[in-house]
Amino acid sequence: MARVTDRAPDLPDAAGPVVADLTEDGLLARIFPHLPAGDRTLLGPGDDAAVLAAPDGRYVVSTDVLVEGRHFRRDWSTGEDVGWRAAMQNLADVAAMGARPTAIVVSLVVPGDLPVAWVEGLARGLGGACRTVGAGVVGGDLSGGDAVVVAVTVHGDLGGVDPVLRSGARPGDVVALAGTVGRSAAGLAMLDAGRADADPAVVAVHRRPQPPLASGPAAAAAGATAMMDVSDGLLRDGERLATASGVVLDLGAPAQVLADDLAALAAAADAVGGDGVAWALGGGEDHGLLATFPAGAALPAGFRRIGAVREADAGAGAGSVLVDGARPTTTTGWEHFGR
Amino acid sequence: MARVTDRAPDLPDAAGPVVADLTEDGLLARIFPHLPAGDRTLLGPGDDAAVLAAPDGRYVVSTDVLVEGRHFRRDWSTGEDVGWRAAMQNLADVAAMGARPTAIVVSLVVPGDLPVAWVEGLARGLGGACRTVGAGVVGGDLSGGDAVVVAVTVHGDLGGVDPVLRSGARPGDVVALAGTVGRSAAGLAMLDAGRADADPAVVAVHRRPQPPLASGPAAAAAGATAMMDVSDGLLRDGERLATASGVVLDLGAPAQVLADDLAALAAAADAVGGDGVAWALGGGEDHGLLATFPAGAALPAGFRRIGAVREADAGAGAGSVLVDGARPTTTTGWEHFGR
Repeated sequence: MARVTDRAPDLPDAAGPVVADLTEDGLLARIFPHLPAGDRTLLGPGDDAAVLAAPDGRYVVSTDVLVEGRHFRRDWSTGEDVGWRAAMQNLADVAAMGARPTAIVVSLVVPGDLPVAWVEGLARGLGGACRTVGAGVVGGDLSGGDAVVVAVTVHGDLGGVDPVLRSGARPGDVVALAGTVGRSAAGLAMLDAGRADADPAVVAVHRRPQPPLASGPAAAAAGATAMMDVSDGLLRDGERLATASGVVLDLGAPAQVLADDLAALAAAADAVGGDGVAWALGGGEDHGLLATFPAGAALPAGFRRIGAVREADAGAGAGSVLVDGARPTTTTGWEHFGR
Repeated sequence: MARVTDRAPDLPDAAGPVVADLTEDGLLARIFPHLPAGDRTLLGPGDDAAVLAAPDGRYVVSTDVLVEGRHFRRDWSTGEDVGWRAAMQNLADVAAMGARPTAIVVSLVVPGDLPVAWVEGLARGLGGACRTVGAGVVGGDLSGGDAVVVAVTVHGDLGGVDPVLRSGARPGDVVALAGTVGRSAAGLAMLDAGRADADPAVVAVHRRPQPPLASGPAAAAAGATAMMDVSDGLLRDGERLATASGVVLDLGAPAQVLADDLAALAAAADAVGGDGVAWALGGGEDHGLLATFPAGAALPAGFRRIGAVREADAGAGAGSVLVDGARPTTTTGWEHFGR
């Protein structure tokens, strides 16, 4: 892992006992007080399984994993940051179906030399993110291991509405975005350059993203035809939605449709010689919501129009994303395994 | 990790491409064909979240994680073994609530040098275990990392019956066990001694446990007052059930009540100088079901009587497990973090 001298100067030092000083039950006793019960929880942690209410007769489920050294660094983010982010990126997946998050469970791998305070922070972050929407932390599992791994599974309630899939966009629909793009990527670039001080606002988005969770059910209620969470970048996730729907997403010029985002990225781009447009189009992990709506629909609060859906043709095949009328040449987001 | 020369001689060699040779989508394409859809799945993998049916209006949820080098070794178990075990230990948690498993999601961390064939095997094992009960593999997440981590979250359907908790055992109840105890621990001891050949049957239980999943709902239907999955050993898990219920579990002499298990462990004990009684009382991971029933109840098929519930007193406080009338002095199961 990173050298101590790389540690972001705004992070508190961890002191006190480490995980190996406690028994499993002792560590759990430090974690449990931070976990909200949730308002759909019939039976919480402590038995072989939790029991959750599903008054709708259906529920949505998604899982996401964060790995130390891949998705976070302990010298760049506190335990509370990592817990918040692990929960929020999962809660956003539920919102992206048009559902309300109700509960998470967490499998946690911790090295023996990890400070107990870091684990308590993680629990506070998980709990804090869940509290923003009334969701509970209803179960988990702990194991030792060489690096921290946080695997969260999230559940949500559709409230009687059909789930909004990636595959429903139709030519003529409006393409709209809720939340921000590019700030988490800019924040990561600031940390990577040792310049966390130069733009604390984008660093804060990297550490604790604020997905527009309420916009998901609002979009479903407003008749959204397709929706997804932007976790790997607007271009790459846009291609996924376009591919699933068999259409082309024709986005406007970034200087117009992403003007607010580019303005918010300008200071960070200046500080480290970064490219605001590349961050805005290619950076994921702000966890905004990309959705399509029928042409005449009023966009729900929080969504702004960024383009239109059109048919594939000889110039742009199904699954394409056009930016200002052309195929973009900038980054298209994350690729985890390729060489 | 272990040296190549430690590799159990009955394991096939892995050859062919490794994870780093593929893109994430390429790896997913190798995994998906092995995953059953499940009969409660309204929307499977590929969107932001899956959608599952909950006709009961409730569902049960549990999560368990397996970490390479802690819970399995790649030179002792194939990918298919690990997938099977990861699924089964989760499915058993659902059965222990008296519910039927319906679906799992899987977060998977894989090193770049892991053979793709190993990952395909893992998917086959996960899918194979789920198929035994009609459950689906409905979602997942992939990440790179230095060691394999398999975090499974399982869901289940109560079918209109109340969940069977750990806390409902009452003095006078019968203590009963479904499934086996000690064989997984014996199998692990054989592998550790390099003697997998001496008792393939117990090694097979370690690699691919066969929890009595149908016995969970059967116990609920028969009026079980308390139940749990035996994952950390009969003594330790018995103490948990006794603690939650505020009672004492008074187990009979192992030579009588665990006679079948001890007979099945005799060859392994001989081969490596092991202690069959210690394995049977302290070894987990066969994932049998420990349950209590009212004194007059007919035990459902698969359960055998191993003791009685009684009140705490000066000689044995609430939470105690007695064996043949005395407090046992042998191992009491796993402790993950203690020094």
